[in-house]
Amino acid sequence: MLIAEIRVTLKEGVLDPQGTTLRRSLETLGFAGVGEVRVGKSIQVSFAHGDRARARAEAEAMCAKVLANPVIEQYHVDLREA
Amino acid sequence: MLIAEIRVTLKEGVLDPQGTTLRRSLETLGFAGVGEVRVGKSIQVSFAHGDRARARAEAEAMCAKVLANPVIEQYHVDLREA
Repeated sequence: MLIAEIRVTLKEGVLDPQGTTLRRSLETLGFAGVGEVRVGKSIQVSFAHGDRARARAEAEAMCAKVLANPVIEQYHVDLREA
Repeated sequence: MLIAEIRVTLKEGVLDPQGTTLRRSLETLGFAGVGEVRVGKSIQVSFAHGDRARARAEAEAMCAKVLANPVIEQYHVDLREA
């Protein structure tokens, strides 16, 4: 069985208020030396078939149509065997 | 500069209503052959220093203390150069 590990993150230059808040919290908790923090989504999709090329094409189509907002977000797909 | 790519996901066996809803949406949109869908968080933390061992220890501590709920979530840290 194939699993697509999809990471959806904000594009460079897009403000990330959630990340900024998280960075401040980490500093308050004593984590020094933290630079930028960016928050995104991690989505795992498992496929019933074992066709890698088809799974990659489907995962990319899901990202473009549903999982990511292409105006402000970018995505990355990694395929692995379950 | 070092960047920790942190993935926080629900543990096996923990119900993921967001993932279930997403799977139904994907089916409705015509993506056949989709098995389980699981949704988690992807967090990028950049460090001002270049000490890999220290960055990994700090990232793991952040996960244990702030980023993940250890009762229902697991985390994975990957380090990379910026």
